[in-house]
Amino acid sequence: MTYCVGLKLNAGLVLLSDTRTNAGLDNIACYRKMYTFEEPGERVVVVMTAGSLSVTQTTLARLAEAIDDEMADETTSIMKAQTMLQVASIIGHTLSRTRREIVEQMREFNQQASASMIVAGQRKGGDMRMFLIYPEGNFIEATDDTPFLQIGEHKYGKPILDRVVTPATSMADAQKAVLLSMDSTLRSNLSVGMPLDLAVIEKDACAITSKRRILEGDPDFMEMSAAWSAALRDSFVKVSI
Amino acid sequence: MTYCVGLKLNAGLVLLSDTRTNAGLDNIACYRKMYTFEEPGERVVVVMTAGSLSVTQTTLARLAEAIDDEMADETTSIMKAQTMLQVASIIGHTLSRTRREIVEQMREFNQQASASMIVAGQRKGGDMRMFLIYPEGNFIEATDDTPFLQIGEHKYGKPILDRVVTPATSMADAQKAVLLSMDSTLRSNLSVGMPLDLAVIEKDACAITSKRRILEGDPDFMEMSAAWSAALRDSFVKVSI
Repeated sequence: MTYCVGLKLNAGLVLLSDTRTNAGLDNIACYRKMYTFEEPGERVVVVMTAGSLSVTQTTLARLAEAIDDEMADETTSIMKAQTMLQVASIIGHTLSRTRREIVEQMREFNQQASASMIVAGQRKGGDMRMFLIYPEGNFIEATDDTPFLQIGEHKYGKPILDRVVTPATSMADAQKAVLLSMDSTLRSNLSVGMPLDLAVIEKDACAITSKRRILEGDPDFMEMSAAWSAALRDSFVKVSI
Repeated sequence: MTYCVGLKLNAGLVLLSDTRTNAGLDNIACYRKMYTFEEPGERVVVVMTAGSLSVTQTTLARLAEAIDDEMADETTSIMKAQTMLQVASIIGHTLSRTRREIVEQMREFNQQASASMIVAGQRKGGDMRMFLIYPEGNFIEATDDTPFLQIGEHKYGKPILDRVVTPATSMADAQKAVLLSMDSTLRSNLSVGMPLDLAVIEKDACAITSKRRILEGDPDFMEMSAAWSAALRDSFVKVSI
């Protein structure tokens, strides 16, 4: 499985993904699930993926091919699309077409293939936007009521987000929130694993403000994780029934 | 859906279930999912259920019928079974038989029916034991390595259990842990709902030590829930990345 989470806040976008891919429990590998596309100052798009690797890789390869294609226009290249809505629409269309083809190939073996994506970014002069794209190509958008989107193993890490994230959350707190949400997921589910990819996009920068790969054994992450466990246990002792 | 959780600790058993049953989002009802059977001082058995109500109710009705049947023996009545293992085996057998019949009736409508159960208890002279019974009738048992079992919507409430529950946890802390685990689930998933049923069985009592229904708006539960939210937010502020 996978866990990817994105926050859309007043101050910017914060995106985090794990890197574990598995075909059964005995076949585990590390694959990047976060892809960034940018023309700094003009446009930034981040895509995070969950689901069948054959579907997500082929979809991303097709999106990249369209970007490099000199004949591509605003309806086929996410780097030429006029709006973030159009970006989501191109990705949704490419995802659903790719999935349909792969499902068709697999039909005689009675196997399924599916994938979903989170797409976030901003175009100069436009608003920051973040979408969750379903396997069928349709999508929903993050709003002030629900400023976060999750794909993959989303349940373990949801309670902390439900409690602390609002559109007014600072970028520093937002990074802490997604890392703690990931920490809960890593602890409770083997199919989500380190390293992690964290990207931060400040509002109106139209560029990746910071991007970081957090490796297994990263001292800052381990310290935060231990401090959170200790704080939770302290809180547990303090609360009375 | 449902959320039921049981802890098997050195000091005793703690069991908690919600009561929400739904057929779609627009058909929600309240049904007890915790059933207790006891001959105080001699034997206590608690069964918690998740899954299709038709399967769980019919299974429980058959178990109750066998208890009342004068012809029943240790292989058919859970109140006559010689060991908790035999209790689990009778329940597993009854569950899988009931499920098979109902699935057969539904086959032409291409519908499924399934259910799982947690069974916990003690017989005088025996050990406390707790089992998770699968729809097929086979089961696993709680151990010192994994002193809790969950059925239904188990993911939201697992991180807190993973962090605080060990076999040495006190009975008071255990009740707090299951209630906080339920609180996280209630907040993040509509298909789990109040009221709650909480049962406590102290070691070697071979009887229900305490049993309580916690209603919507229960002031103690609301206070605990608010204190936990506040403590989590405090912890969140304190932890640094």
